[in-house]
Amino acid sequence: MKSNRHITLPAGFVAGAVRCGIKRREVEDVAIIAADDGPVPAAMMTTTNQVVGAPVRWNRRLLPRGHGLIRAIAVNAGCANTCNGPRGDRDAATMASLTAKGVGCALGQVLICSTGVIGQPMPMEKLRAGIAGAAAALSTGGDDAVARAIMTTDTRPKTAIVQGRLGGQRITVAGVAKGSGMIAPSMATMLVFVTTDAAIAASALHRILRTAADTTFNAITVDGDTSTSDTLIVLASGAAANRTITGGTDAQKLGGLLEEVCGALAEAIVRDGEGATKLVRVTVGGARSDAEARLAARSIAESPLFKCAVHGGDPNWGRILAAAGRSQARVDQDRASCKLGGVTVMRRGASCRFDLAAAQKYMAGSEISVELDLHLGSGRYTVLTCDLSREYIAINADYHT
Amino acid sequence: MKSNRHITLPAGFVAGAVRCGIKRREVEDVAIIAADDGPVPAAMMTTTNQVVGAPVRWNRRLLPRGHGLIRAIAVNAGCANTCNGPRGDRDAATMASLTAKGVGCALGQVLICSTGVIGQPMPMEKLRAGIAGAAAALSTGGDDAVARAIMTTDTRPKTAIVQGRLGGQRITVAGVAKGSGMIAPSMATMLVFVTTDAAIAASALHRILRTAADTTFNAITVDGDTSTSDTLIVLASGAAANRTITGGTDAQKLGGLLEEVCGALAEAIVRDGEGATKLVRVTVGGARSDAEARLAARSIAESPLFKCAVHGGDPNWGRILAAAGRSQARVDQDRASCKLGGVTVMRRGASCRFDLAAAQKYMAGSEISVELDLHLGSGRYTVLTCDLSREYIAINADYHT
Repeated sequence: MKSNRHITLPAGFVAGAVRCGIKRREVEDVAIIAADDGPVPAAMMTTTNQVVGAPVRWNRRLLPRGHGLIRAIAVNAGCANTCNGPRGDRDAATMASLTAKGVGCALGQVLICSTGVIGQPMPMEKLRAGIAGAAAALSTGGDDAVARAIMTTDTRPKTAIVQGRLGGQRITVAGVAKGSGMIAPSMATMLVFVTTDAAIAASALHRILRTAADTTFNAITVDGDTSTSDTLIVLASGAAANRTITGGTDAQKLGGLLEEVCGALAEAIVRDGEGATKLVRVTVGGARSDAEARLAARSIAESPLFKCAVHGGDPNWGRILAAAGRSQARVDQDRASCKLGGVTVMRRGASCRFDLAAAQKYMAGSEISVELDLHLGSGRYTVLTCDLSREYIAINADYHT
Repeated sequence: MKSNRHITLPAGFVAGAVRCGIKRREVEDVAIIAADDGPVPAAMMTTTNQVVGAPVRWNRRLLPRGHGLIRAIAVNAGCANTCNGPRGDRDAATMASLTAKGVGCALGQVLICSTGVIGQPMPMEKLRAGIAGAAAALSTGGDDAVARAIMTTDTRPKTAIVQGRLGGQRITVAGVAKGSGMIAPSMATMLVFVTTDAAIAASALHRILRTAADTTFNAITVDGDTSTSDTLIVLASGAAANRTITGGTDAQKLGGLLEEVCGALAEAIVRDGEGATKLVRVTVGGARSDAEARLAARSIAESPLFKCAVHGGDPNWGRILAAAGRSQARVDQDRASCKLGGVTVMRRGASCRFDLAAAQKYMAGSEISVELDLHLGSGRYTVLTCDLSREYIAINADYHT
């Protein structure tokens, strides 16, 4: 089987994944992504949930300011190593240590990520074999195995590649993501690994990462449940040999490429949301501020009644306005207007004449765009979400402890 | 058919309901509850949603401080008269005017409530006939017809009666409620009408109503969506001839009876939550304050992942802790413990030995009690909720505009 390259496409990276039996399904479940020639500038964002997995604790101790020099990321799916007490922290340290040994680097250069069930101890014997196998498999052809290895309830791998030019050099930014449920990222998201061959200082990399996350991963929601394992990491090998970026327009340019990759991966996560059949773009405009637009857009995007209406193909704008009205954003119903797919269905808080059959046909489609204009200011924000289906219930009522 | 009395059981009240065709189903859809001998002290609470129905606006103009003297409440189901612009306000005034004429009282003594679809104009010709019919049907036998008339997606009528003694007099407090979806009351809930024969000043009645609502209607959630029509009204006829209450221990005693009625109706609403198969009591203890306990309990009770786990009978305490961790309440995972049905399943943020088969059997039951102890203080709060089922999706994907 020919392997597609993505995260090893930027020069300077190798990847490998094997199956060690942590997942029940017969698929890869442990992976390593590494810089092949020593540690490189790295930036990281992690969940805002106060309950965090042992791997998140390890990574935060390693990179207290969110950036530094990193050689390798080890990741497993099937067990989140979260809520396992002191044993969880010991297992996380062992996971990092095994990776350092496998890759041949210092312990302080290894980040780790685990995703899966909460509250079950890591099966360390399986992991030990898995890390050794993944280290042995490191190559520029391991990309697809890594994309499969990090999946849990995901139905498909999620990858993105963007290229651009910086100071005469061609720059590649590539990423891989997992995420399908427990998606309401707040300052980070599920597991996302991005590589680039750009030369950039770690602190500058961290700044552009935070900016890119704000309009991408922090603007999606599947079910409003923020994960305890959310981690977003970017590694920059410098192999493109551009003049090392420390800020300025080059940082902005690279930030733009990074945002493109993050945006593509964020959208892929929502499209693969648990039980999702539709992609829904909720835009709130005319708010008193961008922050208020965000509050209203999130309230709509997380409303079970709205998500069910979308699933049923119902142009029910009343649920959109009601969800905004219960948010912390200022709403004046007598000014608000609402568009479905560009067609105004509500004006000044009341129904206006529109073609109901056409609206129903639009709502039956697979990509829905909703725009609520509050007519109170210039604040604007867009959140991506999906519909709420019986399949979401099936997945989450049956995904047993 | 013998009619049960509830809201007319306290002396001084009559009730009546008829079908006028606002609901598609062949069932009563317009009702009047009235004091039979002139206006009586009344207290009211309405939704905190910024988007409100025209009837809520009417009631607030009539009782700007939440209490006053009221003769009659008119209510219809099937059309919420919400988001209908100036026409909605005119129709609301007409509804009150028709009621005043039917009952024979001043316009300023009539409260009105409408529940149903948002954004559709009130069918006034039907309503005109309905109000006249309901006024003609007023009697001490109309209670059950009223309970049926106010239902929308409710599967059964919800009523409660409590009796007690005050200053040597027997006091009766009775109530009727509707509510099944769009339930996350905040300072009020769906439609609830309570009557009592106690003699009490309107302002004192308002004070005890707010206290009672806080631990009952404001402590339930079906889907986190706060309605635009939430209204809770209590009328006190004074027919019990107790010394008129203005405060003190008698107010506390009556408040206790009121809280019992409100608690029973609130629980009935959750039991009849859209698609609900289980009643779930989520208690958070050991929080830094009651307010923080409430934030954490609400976050758990509104988590789709937790509600799906309950539906699937899964003792998944990880989702409980994760939902608390993403709330605004302070959580230290290394201190938290969790009980399911009184059995500790997690201690200091990690799984402890428990009988998994027994826990699964418990979770398969129809009443589930979850207790998360944060071990950070003495704050405590309990929220009632239900599970999230495929039936909820069916109801709300198919309840069309």
